[in-house]
Amino acid sequence: MSTFGNHFRVTTYGESHCLSVGCIVDGCPPGMKLTEDDIQPQMTRRRPGQSAITTPRNEKDRVEIQSGTEFGITLGTPIGMRVMNENQRKQDYGNKTMDLYPRPSHADWTYLEKYGVKASSGGGRSSARETIGRVAAGAIAEKYLRQAYGIEIVAFVASIGNEYLFPPTPTHPTAATNPEFLKLVETIDRTTVDSFLPVRCPNQETSERMEKLVAEFRDREDSIGGTVTCVIRNCPSGLGEPCFDKLEATLAHAMLSIPATKGFEIGSGFGGCQVPGSIHNDAFIKAPAIPPGQNGLHPSVARPRLTTKTNNSGGIQGGISNGAPIYFTVGFKPPATIGQAQSTAAYDEADGVLEAKGRHDPCVVPRAVPIVESMAALVIIDAVLAQQGRNAARRLLPALEGVVAVDTTTMQ
Amino acid sequence: MSTFGNHFRVTTYGESHCLSVGCIVDGCPPGMKLTEDDIQPQMTRRRPGQSAITTPRNEKDRVEIQSGTEFGITLGTPIGMRVMNENQRKQDYGNKTMDLYPRPSHADWTYLEKYGVKASSGGGRSSARETIGRVAAGAIAEKYLRQAYGIEIVAFVASIGNEYLFPPTPTHPTAATNPEFLKLVETIDRTTVDSFLPVRCPNQETSERMEKLVAEFRDREDSIGGTVTCVIRNCPSGLGEPCFDKLEATLAHAMLSIPATKGFEIGSGFGGCQVPGSIHNDAFIKAPAIPPGQNGLHPSVARPRLTTKTNNSGGIQGGISNGAPIYFTVGFKPPATIGQAQSTAAYDEADGVLEAKGRHDPCVVPRAVPIVESMAALVIIDAVLAQQGRNAARRLLPALEGVVAVDTTTMQ
Amino acid sequence: MSTFGNHFRVTTYGESHCLSVGCIVDGCPPGMKLTEDDIQPQMTRRRPGQSAITTPRNEKDRVEIQSGTEFGITLGTPIGMRVMNENQRKQDYGNKTMDLYPRPSHADWTYLEKYGVKASSGGGRSSARETIGRVAAGAIAEKYLRQAYGIEIVAFVASIGNEYLFPPTPTHPTAATNPEFLKLVETIDRTTVDSFLPVRCPNQETSERMEKLVAEFRDREDSIGGTVTCVIRNCPSGLGEPCFDKLEATLAHAMLSIPATKGFEIGSGFGGCQVPGSIHNDAFIKAPAIPPGQNGLHPSVARPRLTTKTNNSGGIQGGISNGAPIYFTVGFKPPATIGQAQSTAAYDEADGVLEAKGRHDPCVVPRAVPIVESMAALVIIDAVLAQQGRNAARRLLPALEGVVAVDTTTMQ
Amino acid sequence: MSTFGNHFRVTTYGESHCLSVGCIVDGCPPGMKLTEDDIQPQMTRRRPGQSAITTPRNEKDRVEIQSGTEFGITLGTPIGMRVMNENQRKQDYGNKTMDLYPRPSHADWTYLEKYGVKASSGGGRSSARETIGRVAAGAIAEKYLRQAYGIEIVAFVASIGNEYLFPPTPTHPTAATNPEFLKLVETIDRTTVDSFLPVRCPNQETSERMEKLVAEFRDREDSIGGTVTCVIRNCPSGLGEPCFDKLEATLAHAMLSIPATKGFEIGSGFGGCQVPGSIHNDAFIKAPAIPPGQNGLHPSVARPRLTTKTNNSGGIQGGISNGAPIYFTVGFKPPATIGQAQSTAAYDEADGVLEAKGRHDPCVVPRAVPIVESMAALVIIDAVLAQQGRNAARRLLPALEGVVAVDTTTMQ
Repeated sequence: MSTFGNHFRVTTYGESHCLSVGCIVDGCPPGMKLTEDDIQPQMTRRRPGQSAITTPRNEKDRVEIQSGTEFGITLGTPIGMRVMNENQRKQDYGNKTMDLYPRPSHADWTYLEKYGVKASSGGGRSSARETIGRVAAGAIAEKYLRQAYGIEIVAFVASIGNEYLFPPTPTHPTAATNPEFLKLVETIDRTTVDSFLPVRCPNQETSERMEKLVAEFRDREDSIGGTVTCVIRNCPSGLGEPCFDKLEATLAHAMLSIPATKGFEIGSGFGGCQVPGSIHNDAFIKAPAIPPGQNGLHPSVARPRLTTKTNNSGGIQGGISNGAPIYFTVGFKPPATIGQAQSTAAYDEADGVLEAKGRHDPCVVPRAVPIVESMAALVIIDAVLAQQGRNAARRLLPALEGVVAVDTTTMQ
Repeated sequence: MSTFGNHFRVTTYGESHCLSVGCIVDGCPPGMKLTEDDIQPQMTRRRPGQSAITTPRNEKDRVEIQSGTEFGITLGTPIGMRVMNENQRKQDYGNKTMDLYPRPSHADWTYLEKYGVKASSGGGRSSARETIGRVAAGAIAEKYLRQAYGIEIVAFVASIGNEYLFPPTPTHPTAATNPEFLKLVETIDRTTVDSFLPVRCPNQETSERMEKLVAEFRDREDSIGGTVTCVIRNCPSGLGEPCFDKLEATLAHAMLSIPATKGFEIGSGFGGCQVPGSIHNDAFIKAPAIPPGQNGLHPSVARPRLTTKTNNSGGIQGGISNGAPIYFTVGFKPPATIGQAQSTAAYDEADGVLEAKGRHDPCVVPRAVPIVESMAALVIIDAVLAQQGRNAARRLLPALEGVVAVDTTTMQ
Repeated sequence: MSTFGNHFRVTTYGESHCLSVGCIVDGCPPGMKLTEDDIQPQMTRRRPGQSAITTPRNEKDRVEIQSGTEFGITLGTPIGMRVMNENQRKQDYGNKTMDLYPRPSHADWTYLEKYGVKASSGGGRSSARETIGRVAAGAIAEKYLRQAYGIEIVAFVASIGNEYLFPPTPTHPTAATNPEFLKLVETIDRTTVDSFLPVRCPNQETSERMEKLVAEFRDREDSIGGTVTCVIRNCPSGLGEPCFDKLEATLAHAMLSIPATKGFEIGSGFGGCQVPGSIHNDAFIKAPAIPPGQNGLHPSVARPRLTTKTNNSGGIQGGISNGAPIYFTVGFKPPATIGQAQSTAAYDEADGVLEAKGRHDPCVVPRAVPIVESMAALVIIDAVLAQQGRNAARRLLPALEGVVAVDTTTMQ
Repeated sequence: MSTFGNHFRVTTYGESHCLSVGCIVDGCPPGMKLTEDDIQPQMTRRRPGQSAITTPRNEKDRVEIQSGTEFGITLGTPIGMRVMNENQRKQDYGNKTMDLYPRPSHADWTYLEKYGVKASSGGGRSSARETIGRVAAGAIAEKYLRQAYGIEIVAFVASIGNEYLFPPTPTHPTAATNPEFLKLVETIDRTTVDSFLPVRCPNQETSERMEKLVAEFRDREDSIGGTVTCVIRNCPSGLGEPCFDKLEATLAHAMLSIPATKGFEIGSGFGGCQVPGSIHNDAFIKAPAIPPGQNGLHPSVARPRLTTKTNNSGGIQGGISNGAPIYFTVGFKPPATIGQAQSTAAYDEADGVLEAKGRHDPCVVPRAVPIVESMAALVIIDAVLAQQGRNAARRLLPALEGVVAVDTTTMQ
């Protein structure tokens, strides 16, 4: 379906070649300042053409708010948003080569199998352009999370091909046990990440190796994948709706819904499956007192009294956030469109050779960074609204022995 | 939330220490033969105590159907199911050691932060017992999928600690490019998997190494994680509901909702991010003709006319199944309950030492196999019902030029 | 579907002749006292056999809580509930007369058309027994609403056949404009209603006329319908989720989902369509100050500063509650099962005559009273949880000019 | 919420004074011809200013499809639609009279109570302009229903004030028992209804009395309500999803979500509550054979073998359609905006007098006709898609004794 979220509900529309793409955001809290200026920066960060190693097509992607705000304040009603397409196909060009072959590892074939209609853009909604609605909605979610909790969401490139920011080692089969990684988790911000354009990997040396690797693939008319790690800081404890909507489950859902993704890891991830329980367990310690209102926190929001010494859990235990930084990693496959000739079959089953014309993006990972952040924001705001509602409901019940009052240890 | 699925909707209930656990399945097709005998085998496969290396507690877990069938045939109405608990806590035992400390990397702390109530079972619904409802529902889903399409779902242990069935190599950073793995994907069945109890890894030598490794961790009162790979064969093309409910996204959601999971990979997965696009792309070839009704298929179900030479996509492209086997891998962390003493903080913030009494399961991965299969079945039946509905709707529209008729290439 | 509500989600199961009926309540606030004793009274009020004019079959209907509470306190996890059936059909009795004919105006025929399976109970889930799960869930909802807001929900019989508590007149085509009716709306309680058993119409004279009318229909082996009016007092303003889930829309949905209902009216209803706007409009007046905590209100809940002079709106304007009493009326048709012989066609299209054996309920309206109350409670708690969540989200935003703070005029 | 439907999901956006209003339709079957020309006629029918007795403001309301079609064929992806507003408020005009008073029986007050933000349009989404998205979506639904089943949906004005097309009589407390009404139900079409503009009541004499009545109210600067009856013909049997989503329940939900509605009746409705069961029951008879493909039916659609002699059920029994015409009635209150001076309180609690300037619509009932039809179409297509899916799922199961095959008696 084209709707994401239960409380902060985003419904997107639009193919590559239609009039516009956009979305409706239903459930945004009323009374929040909001204009296009809050949304445009992430729209621009996801645009192609930001550097030599991303695609040179120049999209404009100006977002227009259609409804749901008045005089720059949200009304609590649905927020419609629209971005015009500039590559509308006005007529059917007929049997071009691209129309005879389903592109390998693209969505052309499966969209036709599913819908029975062959859109001129091939895989209809599977193009990167579909993510515009997600990013626009994510920017609104982020603004609320920042204002209400001081939540910070930062993603960066963790690997391209076999070049890793924190390569697995026998000591650290997962970066989660590496103190340097944990320090990065605590401190990384978007300005730093963007200072490492075009690859958005926040380490000078690794960044250069990655850039070189991508250039090699571009020169070979080939492509390469990689991974993006995303960090969410200042998240209140108590987020996530077990048993089916555990926080890591909805994050995984969100991330695997991004085009070209192949995997998701929370906290110590697959590497953590190799770490003994005695090391992997995150012991509890008394949390340092943070005066409400400091560290970007809303004055009325209390922090948990306990935290964990290590963070192999990635900030989530039993499907619920524990107040520690949440972090996860998403894998992206090599782009399917490559300049090299490929032997493949046509729709009519005849064998043939397909060659993609023009210049193509040899690696989408850097550009995926704002998309990962946006989907993370959509997951977190949905969990926040669910838990705020639960706490509000609890707050009106008579106090009972053995029941912890809302206002003492958990989020508001 | 406690409901999974949009068309085949499963709602579960039950903690470890309450009267019973169970579920309601809403949306099961009417007119299907169904009794407890169809459900019990998977219930039994998930029971602890099946061998020396799993927990010795002996649960009974007899499922009783409450409603939704009559004389062994489904009515199309909600199917209630119930399994009695035998460890009900009739009274509060008060301040035992286990009650003073939130267990590290368990859900005790986060459940308290979320709900404000401390259940005697600690993390309420986070125990493995919660999965009973999933497995019962999954068994019903599987029966339909098998009868309607000949769909086969088989999971097996792919790694424990650093013992792998297909360890990553420079040539094959992902098993997906390894022909031996692909052969296993095509042929593995549950009988074979269970012949490798207690570890359920279908290779004699690896299986023995894993068994030995688990024994070592048990002897050290420690624990270890691992991975489960799951294969879905005979799946029709066209399953998955982009853009947010891509098939891999709902699979990831389902898998990360299982307790103790840390990661999910579809097809070539994280290893595939290191493979060049020119190798990773799955070229199309003409599919071998399979007479309808053969190979377990329903007589009226046509197969796609094209298939792929390789299967790095794991049977899903653009979020939609392409008819090739679907396979994915799920990572499980080391169990949090270990016999070793752990330094940690109590609920009241005081430092202390926690020691878990009794015998504990050093590795849950073998027992996770039927749970992974069940959740896969729930995802697939939901996607099947969605796509069957779409095709049924299409079938009544007038034929149009450029639109492929339902009955020729896609699932019914 | 068998689920009602988005935030307080009730999923029911069970036919007349299966093992049990019941439900799962997901989303109940944690930390509330709850035992079977809170639920049983409404279960008993809905039981048949409470008087000479309702059906003499004696059902027991003891509810058992399966999960979601511990030591009498809700955990915030799903609450499973079960009531055993005592009329299970162990075997198929074959071609009895009742099995040859679809009963006129029953659900036998349509259930067969829909599901293709003929349940021995005929219309499967369409029997009154299905409402047990609703009433059990409604009792939990009511307890929360009463504790948190002092909300009172009271239904009563407003008409049977052409005997009306407030018959329409040229002056008052709707009771809404009648001051006596408005006084009743302000004061009626369940004890008073039940003192008028068997008809539950709170007026001595009308009650007697109704009882006589029902007796006549019983003696003629015929049946008769009627209407139930329901009042919801102390409801906070701000409930209802336009534009599709206006409060009257979800109330209408809930009421028309009760078996045998034919109509729904909010406030002035159909009679109000005949009243000029100049009379029908509810002018605003300053609300009398009610000290928080009085009148059954929770101490922290502020009341709206304005109220309306009249209440033709029935407490809802623009789909949102305004703080005035909400009231609505539901129409119930005459029961379809009558002793009189009926000429009708059999499943095999042959003409014939159907005679229902045994004693049958000539009028279901009095027994519908607790069912209407229960569904009202489910609608209101769902709207309350939605609005509590919205207000909780708003509360953390920086204050803005032109935005009213949560804590001053609206519900918490 | 702003989404309606589970399978054919409509999400709307837009206030009166923002940039545009519109909607996203998700779940439209692929492969259907669709252009703006299919949608515009109903958009135009709902426009104000169609005659002397409706409001003279002239809206344009040209719909633009943004996505989801290519070359005039639906792709199966979300269909975005947009209609520009022409009355955007570019700046806040401040304290005009209208801004000081919440208009009586409008949504101004309750929107402020709910959202805490005072939109310049008062009740935000409560204006009639919000219905544009519904009508656009409904037109798409109607096209599918007509092409697939020959379904016809026709609404007409049944009463204005106390002028009725079929006034209740002692013999016929409900029109349902009146043969003339049933004949109208079988035959009425939109062309006939529109030939009775401005009132859309298909009877010359009643129509004239209504027109006169409305003129009187207009001259008095007052307003009056009325009722709309809607008929759905050629509906397959088996539609509706008990127990909570009975077909009459979702129809009631849809209708009560339309602004200014006060009541809903299915079939015999409230009048039917006065009719004895022996008369009210709809006896079954053998249905006349209708060759598939005749009477507007799709060639592959079989009709039920039985039908009912009378139709007090209004085509729905046990919450499921039985193949007979479905009909229901919706009550609309007198418009709240009247020219007469009204004594009422201001937002600041001060008493005062409010006078609405300009010309206002004294009766919205005729203009509600296409809105009622549109919402009916949205309900029916959602039920159709659900049941098509169920039947498609059933069709692949092995044949069982006692189970009716899909293709013989029910809809495809």
